[in-house]
Amino acid sequence: PNYVREYENYFSRTLLDRRSDKRTDSKWLNRKQNHPATIYILFSNLSPLVTLGGGEDSYQQPEVRLCRLCHKDVKEYMSQTEEVTLIFLGVELQLASLNGRVLKEDEDDGLVAWFALSIDATFAEQFKQKHEDCYFLHPPMPALLQLPEREAGIVAQARSVLAWHNRYQFCPTCGSSTKIEEGGYKKTCLKEDCPSLQGVHNTSYPRIDPVVIMQVLHPDGNQCLLGRQKRFPPGLFTCLAGFVEPGETIEDAVRREVEEESGVKIGHVQYVSCQPWPMPSSLMIGCLAVAISTEIRVDKNEIEDARWFTREQVVDVLIKGNQHSFLVPPSQAIAHQLIKHWIGMNANL
Amino acid sequence: PNYVREYENYFSRTLLDRRSDKRTDSKWLNRKQNHPATIYILFSNLSPLVTLGGGEDSYQQPEVRLCRLCHKDVKEYMSQTEEVTLIFLGVELQLASLNGRVLKEDEDDGLVAWFALSIDATFAEQFKQKHEDCYFLHPPMPALLQLPEREAGIVAQARSVLAWHNRYQFCPTCGSSTKIEEGGYKKTCLKEDCPSLQGVHNTSYPRIDPVVIMQVLHPDGNQCLLGRQKRFPPGLFTCLAGFVEPGETIEDAVRREVEEESGVKIGHVQYVSCQPWPMPSSLMIGCLAVAISTEIRVDKNEIEDARWFTREQVVDVLIKGNQHSFLVPPSQAIAHQLIKHWIGMNANL
Ligand SMILES: Nc1ncnc2c1ncn2[C@@H]1O[C@H](COP(=O)(O)O)[C@@H](O)[C@H]1O
Ligand SMILES: Nc1ncnc2c1ncn2[C@@H]1O[C@H](COP(=O)(O)O)[C@@H](O)[C@H]1O
Repeated sequence: PNYVREYENYFSRTLLDRRSDKRTDSKWLNRKQNHPATIYILFSNLSPLVTLGGGEDSYQQPEVRLCRLCHKDVKEYMSQTEEVTLIFLGVELQLASLNGRVLKEDEDDGLVAWFALSIDATFAEQFKQKHEDCYFLHPPMPALLQLPEREAGIVAQARSVLAWHNRYQFCPTCGSSTKIEEGGYKKTCLKEDCPSLQGVHNTSYPRIDPVVIMQVLHPDGNQCLLGRQKRFPPGLFTCLAGFVEPGETIEDAVRREVEEESGVKIGHVQYVSCQPWPMPSSLMIGCLAVAISTEIRVDKNEIEDARWFTREQVVDVLIKGNQHSFLVPPSQAIAHQLIKHWIGMNANL
Repeated sequence: PNYVREYENYFSRTLLDRRSDKRTDSKWLNRKQNHPATIYILFSNLSPLVTLGGGEDSYQQPEVRLCRLCHKDVKEYMSQTEEVTLIFLGVELQLASLNGRVLKEDEDDGLVAWFALSIDATFAEQFKQKHEDCYFLHPPMPALLQLPEREAGIVAQARSVLAWHNRYQFCPTCGSSTKIEEGGYKKTCLKEDCPSLQGVHNTSYPRIDPVVIMQVLHPDGNQCLLGRQKRFPPGLFTCLAGFVEPGETIEDAVRREVEEESGVKIGHVQYVSCQPWPMPSSLMIGCLAVAISTEIRVDKNEIEDARWFTREQVVDVLIKGNQHSFLVPPSQAIAHQLIKHWIGMNANL
């Protein structure tokens, strides 16, 4: 079969093995929490703690990087806090295998575990005073996009789960308090006879919102439809996007959203690639969509403007860096990748 | 470009135009609720009310169909109930256009609106006594799969939204009660200073869980990996599947789930098609996944068995209807379509 190239986007690189099997192994989790090799990353108000490091060689710009802390840095906070929000992120991938040797009961397995810890404002302040070179990336956007790619995926995972805990503190089924379990991936209602305790329900598991984002092609194949929202920086245009609705396919969501926002009707839809987007917890599903009508009627409630741009205009901005006509999102955004994919694809026709 | 054929699955056909623009038009919604042409479908405990009709010609089996009710059938219930759970589903597509003529203020636009109404057990009982030919499809699975395709998509939409209202009755951010708004697609916290009232938050909108489901191909291209859970009927094998996690791409979720459940490592992953699955509200994302290892180690917590099946074995069961060796899911399930897609694809190599 003629496979389509698979894209790797920002926020989508996995440097950790999630090891979801360990989430229910509280003994192992406990041992790792106290282990000196374990790495903690901190979040305050959903913003990660970072520091500036030199680039890999000295010519480079200083690089924003996650602060990798140890158990001793967070021990005091964790012992003083009643309900710690702690997420087990996984273990580092690059470990040499044990060649199948079975470990003794308490023997260290050598795995380097990562945890994300959400801290309160008081401790965040204290922490910054003790560690002058550290700061919280706030507001998160577009600051998060400064992180090196190898760390962005970890932040996407951690921030999505933390945002869920932040917003879903009470049981939606009965309104009672909940407790965090399974390394941060489950929350359980504390009311004994709550119906959510019978059977498996999504109320106990992190929420992920599927979103469609689409590069819309003009029937002539040589123009694409880009739009802008009022809150965008001046001149910025990007792919249309919207939340998938209940009982809807990806393809139908693409057709509905494009028609709602721009009045343009869509025929064929093709999946291209996807990207986790931790604002707070979306799965951006990127598609190519072929228009079967061309007249634009903008729904002013949703977007401010939408226009057809020619291939030449897009190449000018994207490849030649000509920023006079309009702007597109940065390369870390899947919209950028979709637009680029279209240019590449077209060139091969 | 060489487009892949787009699949239409059960639960994915749209016979209604959702007209989300009307959800905030309470005057229009009100008018339609009382309109004699409006169609109501009823749910009790998330099961739709159905009836048996003759097939399109008299040779056919009696067909399970949705009961299409009118305002007068539900008027009494709606006026007696304090908080009615009513979902605006959309308007029928097949309407002749108005040729651009602008309607007068209160003029009927001729659109046939559909609503889903959730009723309590008492009214459900009363209703069944009054209408002997009607019954609730309970338990919903596999009974829902008897519905004609043209109605299954409507049930998928309605059941997903109703299941959300069922399980998410309280504000997850503060634990207070909520009220239903925007034609059933929004719920708002009733506590005045709840943080969920500031900005836009997913706590107010229906939840959809992205799930990956994958046809895993053996490196030799001539076998596929199917598994079974303990609770399945004897002999049934199907594609592996699992929930997408926060901060994860579709492709990585496929790799993680296959390795977790079966120990098989996956290289390339290709999207094929998707299907809304209203149990309660999943988006099944169907993929082809190419294995790069072949040894199976089943995780007994997740599945009971997983095996490589040859192309011949699958053709025997799927095309020739030989049910001796094993069973696959019915044609309404995306797993069936994925398996079929593989056979077709292989045949063209
Ligand atoms: N949104 C979700 N809804 C239900 N189960 C979930 C969800 N996310 C993760 N899970 C996990 O998936 C398991 C059920 O998976 P399955 O057997 O595929 O239905 C549950 O026991 C949970 O551990
Ligand atoms: N899960 C969701 N989270 C946030 N907004 C949603 C969600 N589902 C639907 N919406 C709607 O989408 C709008 C925001 O869309 P956007 O401008 O694309 O961020 C909100 O005003 C809601 O009406």
